[in-house]
Amino acid sequence: MPGNSFGQLFRITTCGESHGGAVGVIVDGCPPGLTLSEQDIQQELDRRRPGQSAISTPRDEKDKIHILSGMYDGMTTGTPILLLAYNEDTRPQDYREIKKLFRPSHADYTYAAKYGIRDWRGSGRASARETLARVAAGAIAQKYLKEKLGISFISFVEQVGAIRTTINHDQVTRALIDATMIRCPDEKIAKKMIRLIETVRDGKDSIGGVIKGVIHGCPPGLGEPVFDKLNADIGKAMLSINAVKGFEIGSGFSGVAMRGSQHNDPFIKDREGTIRTKTNNAGGILGGISNGETIYFRVAFKPVATIGKKQKTLAENGKPLSLEASGRHDPCVVPRAVPIVDAMAALVVMDHYLRHKAQNC
Amino acid sequence: MPGNSFGQLFRITTCGESHGGAVGVIVDGCPPGLTLSEQDIQQELDRRRPGQSAISTPRDEKDKIHILSGMYDGMTTGTPILLLAYNEDTRPQDYREIKKLFRPSHADYTYAAKYGIRDWRGSGRASARETLARVAAGAIAQKYLKEKLGISFISFVEQVGAIRTTINHDQVTRALIDATMIRCPDEKIAKKMIRLIETVRDGKDSIGGVIKGVIHGCPPGLGEPVFDKLNADIGKAMLSINAVKGFEIGSGFSGVAMRGSQHNDPFIKDREGTIRTKTNNAGGILGGISNGETIYFRVAFKPVATIGKKQKTLAENGKPLSLEASGRHDPCVVPRAVPIVDAMAALVVMDHYLRHKAQNC
Amino acid sequence: MPGNSFGQLFRITTCGESHGGAVGVIVDGCPPGLTLSEQDIQQELDRRRPGQSAISTPRDEKDKIHILSGMYDGMTTGTPILLLAYNEDTRPQDYREIKKLFRPSHADYTYAAKYGIRDWRGSGRASARETLARVAAGAIAQKYLKEKLGISFISFVEQVGAIRTTINHDQVTRALIDATMIRCPDEKIAKKMIRLIETVRDGKDSIGGVIKGVIHGCPPGLGEPVFDKLNADIGKAMLSINAVKGFEIGSGFSGVAMRGSQHNDPFIKDREGTIRTKTNNAGGILGGISNGETIYFRVAFKPVATIGKKQKTLAENGKPLSLEASGRHDPCVVPRAVPIVDAMAALVVMDHYLRHKAQNC
Amino acid sequence: MPGNSFGQLFRITTCGESHGGAVGVIVDGCPPGLTLSEQDIQQELDRRRPGQSAISTPRDEKDKIHILSGMYDGMTTGTPILLLAYNEDTRPQDYREIKKLFRPSHADYTYAAKYGIRDWRGSGRASARETLARVAAGAIAQKYLKEKLGISFISFVEQVGAIRTTINHDQVTRALIDATMIRCPDEKIAKKMIRLIETVRDGKDSIGGVIKGVIHGCPPGLGEPVFDKLNADIGKAMLSINAVKGFEIGSGFSGVAMRGSQHNDPFIKDREGTIRTKTNNAGGILGGISNGETIYFRVAFKPVATIGKKQKTLAENGKPLSLEASGRHDPCVVPRAVPIVDAMAALVVMDHYLRHKAQNC
Repeated sequence: MPGNSFGQLFRITTCGESHGGAVGVIVDGCPPGLTLSEQDIQQELDRRRPGQSAISTPRDEKDKIHILSGMYDGMTTGTPILLLAYNEDTRPQDYREIKKLFRPSHADYTYAAKYGIRDWRGSGRASARETLARVAAGAIAQKYLKEKLGISFISFVEQVGAIRTTINHDQVTRALIDATMIRCPDEKIAKKMIRLIETVRDGKDSIGGVIKGVIHGCPPGLGEPVFDKLNADIGKAMLSINAVKGFEIGSGFSGVAMRGSQHNDPFIKDREGTIRTKTNNAGGILGGISNGETIYFRVAFKPVATIGKKQKTLAENGKPLSLEASGRHDPCVVPRAVPIVDAMAALVVMDHYLRHKAQNC
Repeated sequence: MPGNSFGQLFRITTCGESHGGAVGVIVDGCPPGLTLSEQDIQQELDRRRPGQSAISTPRDEKDKIHILSGMYDGMTTGTPILLLAYNEDTRPQDYREIKKLFRPSHADYTYAAKYGIRDWRGSGRASARETLARVAAGAIAQKYLKEKLGISFISFVEQVGAIRTTINHDQVTRALIDATMIRCPDEKIAKKMIRLIETVRDGKDSIGGVIKGVIHGCPPGLGEPVFDKLNADIGKAMLSINAVKGFEIGSGFSGVAMRGSQHNDPFIKDREGTIRTKTNNAGGILGGISNGETIYFRVAFKPVATIGKKQKTLAENGKPLSLEASGRHDPCVVPRAVPIVDAMAALVVMDHYLRHKAQNC
Repeated sequence: MPGNSFGQLFRITTCGESHGGAVGVIVDGCPPGLTLSEQDIQQELDRRRPGQSAISTPRDEKDKIHILSGMYDGMTTGTPILLLAYNEDTRPQDYREIKKLFRPSHADYTYAAKYGIRDWRGSGRASARETLARVAAGAIAQKYLKEKLGISFISFVEQVGAIRTTINHDQVTRALIDATMIRCPDEKIAKKMIRLIETVRDGKDSIGGVIKGVIHGCPPGLGEPVFDKLNADIGKAMLSINAVKGFEIGSGFSGVAMRGSQHNDPFIKDREGTIRTKTNNAGGILGGISNGETIYFRVAFKPVATIGKKQKTLAENGKPLSLEASGRHDPCVVPRAVPIVDAMAALVVMDHYLRHKAQNC
Repeated sequence: MPGNSFGQLFRITTCGESHGGAVGVIVDGCPPGLTLSEQDIQQELDRRRPGQSAISTPRDEKDKIHILSGMYDGMTTGTPILLLAYNEDTRPQDYREIKKLFRPSHADYTYAAKYGIRDWRGSGRASARETLARVAAGAIAQKYLKEKLGISFISFVEQVGAIRTTINHDQVTRALIDATMIRCPDEKIAKKMIRLIETVRDGKDSIGGVIKGVIHGCPPGLGEPVFDKLNADIGKAMLSINAVKGFEIGSGFSGVAMRGSQHNDPFIKDREGTIRTKTNNAGGILGGISNGETIYFRVAFKPVATIGKKQKTLAENGKPLSLEASGRHDPCVVPRAVPIVDAMAALVVMDHYLRHKAQNC
């Protein structure tokens, strides 16, 4: 199958370039009877929108979402839902300088190598604008999972450069997260992060970060135990986001140095008689299947490739040249990537919920 | 789709439990005309076999592979290939003690929660024996990619506990890797790793490790640029292996603290006039598409959950009890996981090669 | 996977109801470098449009198509193509009478049974307007196949009621087909068909018909030999069109009464030395794989369910009532279904061409 | 995806040639907790076995089925089920004469055209033996649907050559069907059919036939309304069986000549207050979704291509030659195809039941 669909039963297919007519997504397989409005989707989109704060790009894309199908009388009907955001405020001339060169660590060269043709305007399909469709579709999944199963997605910025919060993810709320423009719920650390980003921006440079993904309320039993392990599908979802270079679940890379006797999570019964684990090094998933504990994971984002500093690179014709990007861009991607992480996590959980229901309920 | 298939065009479907009749895999979509013998597959399987050395489990599964379809006159015909290894030397009685309890950090509880029924013998489908099918199928992909495209897979053990080699992955060969029973090509470090594992084993405990995955010779253009990015599919492949908790490509988590100006890989021309990058923080993939550089990634394995040390846990009926595992098990999984990493990487590259060919060649 | 996608590699996902915002389709997997304009698509759409003639519905939907993504500089880029036709001229009030009843032989009842909710306006997703998306996507496949491989799709109306042409399908051209508003290339028979439809319309009734599907120039080798036989996938494509009740390929049902010695198609060499068959009872496909001969098949359409005559039926609440449809509708669907048959056939051939290329070229 | 899998959620992947090691199938997605034995499967297989009667081929393949995975304690566990029948009694020498020629109306030529290589022994993958895997997998679906939902599959031979029974399919039972070796429940017609087949066989020729497929007890709501209409998926399932040339559901081709006022099935309430239709020209499916009535359809099989009569054909090298088949073969395929039709129908219904459950229950 071509690579623009995601999910098996709650299945999204996205389309759209930065400077084409629109960015869109068809959501197929949504259960009927879910109350849904454009506003439900817009509020998630507004979290990823550029132009929100001093530390993000000054573009004001608006990203107004339209629902064009799959609804009747304020409810989903079970037929495919088309969500569309038209492209406005496009300024291809901003990108004209890059038309005939390969920007370092961008997809210009690999698109050309793959397709023999590329839409250079605003990075075309490789634009971060593509993630708008993910967030829009994910908003539907989040609403369904919240209302029907009480599952919530509470991702936040854990690290920018070397600055990292150690806040307990079980005490984080979305209000705390959205309280700072950096989307780090630890106020002190948030300030440091912002200062770092400002310094980096002033140096015409960029910097990476880590988002901690957190899923509360996932019931036991979701995930297919061999190839489509819940952690494998969440991992793929995250690694499919632009600029992501790493993913770890639960103890992750730090578990490597632990002994089994430390790492194993003993089973216990809680006061209600529910089977739980005493610790949660597993990150809420055992053998690829959710065990009812909080699912948490970390997603590493590289520094944004577009920088104002002068860089050496090659023209399409192979001639060396140097480049100083003048386009609109973020010095650090993680604040705006938080809703993308939530959306992708929700799409995976929603899909696995339907898959589990099909075979086992 | 149920979760026992992997790949879109070079598609494998696996089956089999530790103590059922056999572990098997159907490989569908293999191009016709590939010379193939059971020995081609057996040699990869022998790399993952238990009983190879003092530091792995003393079971001797043999894992003899049989090709039951899809071949004529020593060549693949384009029809599905069935590979089967019958289960011999099974000793369900070794596992009888665990029949009615949930082992910590195993999939016993989550299988029961998902399916309501579980095959406890040798962990059933959650057994590491399941990976035999992956390695067998991957051997076909490796042979095809080697012969037709010159692509090779050279993964090795980079870290056990806190002991880590800094060897340059471009200087590693498979001969060097297989020279030590730990499959670390750095002889000095290998010895330290082995000593650590022996200490851990004597303490009836286990320890984790990291495998570095390396792919040489991948041409530019493989990978679908949105959801099925080459790195996302490799990541999923790795995270679907039992005990894997983390994955990073190229700079990975260490890239987080870098500036864009450091992290970006400048394009250059090499002596032959080929477009290359001067550095390779990307790990050989840009925008989800291979760029022709070496693809490298790191895979984190947690310490093996089965340990001889006494642990507290729950019986199926919820009663607390304690457990000292007496079954056969490895104190560290990484030496035997090296061929699994190679196999899964090969399955991803093979699949993306066929996908690329379909649309773009 | 949900049921709104079709094809594996040239994959379309459609959406849209009769009275929502738009009918659309995302075409994923299209090879890059194909010259394409909205006009290329519009001309196929215009063939299925209502309001073309005295014997079809007087609605003038216009069905203007918009390409919103996947194009650059007049060419496909290899990224997904979004095609959209906005819904105008919608008159939900025309359908208000059917809001709370189940029309005989329509999908009202089964949608309600399946989803618990249904969009009654213009039959919602069950509207024939859904086929607009198929024709639009099929126009891209037809253009590609024509230009790159010389394959053409020449379906026509063979039968209306009991009136049937025996014209040799190898002598039919698209010009001949489109010369009559009934799309039957046999002028005399066409006139009789039109008269029959007029009679039926005057009686406030409807009538069925047969379209003969014809594919010229398909090379040998397309089709997967077991489940995804080329004939099986063409059959599914046709049976997925509203109102289709039967499909036969080559000799079809008439082959049942033949002896093997009559039915078998002897292999011969033609003047150019190409292997051909002397007869073509197979309909151009052997063992599920194209053999290079003309592919031909017949598709049976039932009489349109919406009729002006009074009928008995049930209200949603189970009360009996009678119904005289006053909405806009065709007395016979086949003239407008011709481009749908061509489109679906082209989608199947295109998909199988890419699949074949992936594994075997 | 390669073409050897069928179904989305109840998904089978088959393998095996006539003269390789085995014919097999992996059934993935089966719900856990279904009681299942090899005997449950064997009894369906025995219905398709050659050597059952004077009018079928004298081979005695035995076709003993083995369950090699996915079971514990007599029940399915939710993990993939491997079913295998080893190839015995293979006599490749019977086929040596056809090694280097293309038999008329067989797949020899098209396999060679597609893959460049073919396994000529017993027709390789194109052998009717491939259907063994379908019947085995279908037996599991039939058992589940019978026990959990009361759905049953009662297909029978309706026509051989021009001899056709007009028996009411609602009065047919499996006992009646299996009472005659021709599997026609109308005793008088059955005798005529047998006589015709004997005559044809004595003339070293073959003849076609029609199987009527019948599904009792399917609840309303199954089927996806656009591309994966229940009738489209049943149609594809049937058209994927070797030798099938036509499919029609409900009124089928005969509906073409009817008026809408005759063809429409009025909704009524039965005594229990259930919504039913008075007539059933629809064949139990409206808008692609089951409506609760009996599903019935007709499947046309061409005369068997292998005949003893002398035929002209070409050698692989293009030289004309003549052929008199001496291998073991049936003069008419329909009696043995009855269980295949039941199996494929059950696979479709089972898959759609799980799909419906995922989205709508």
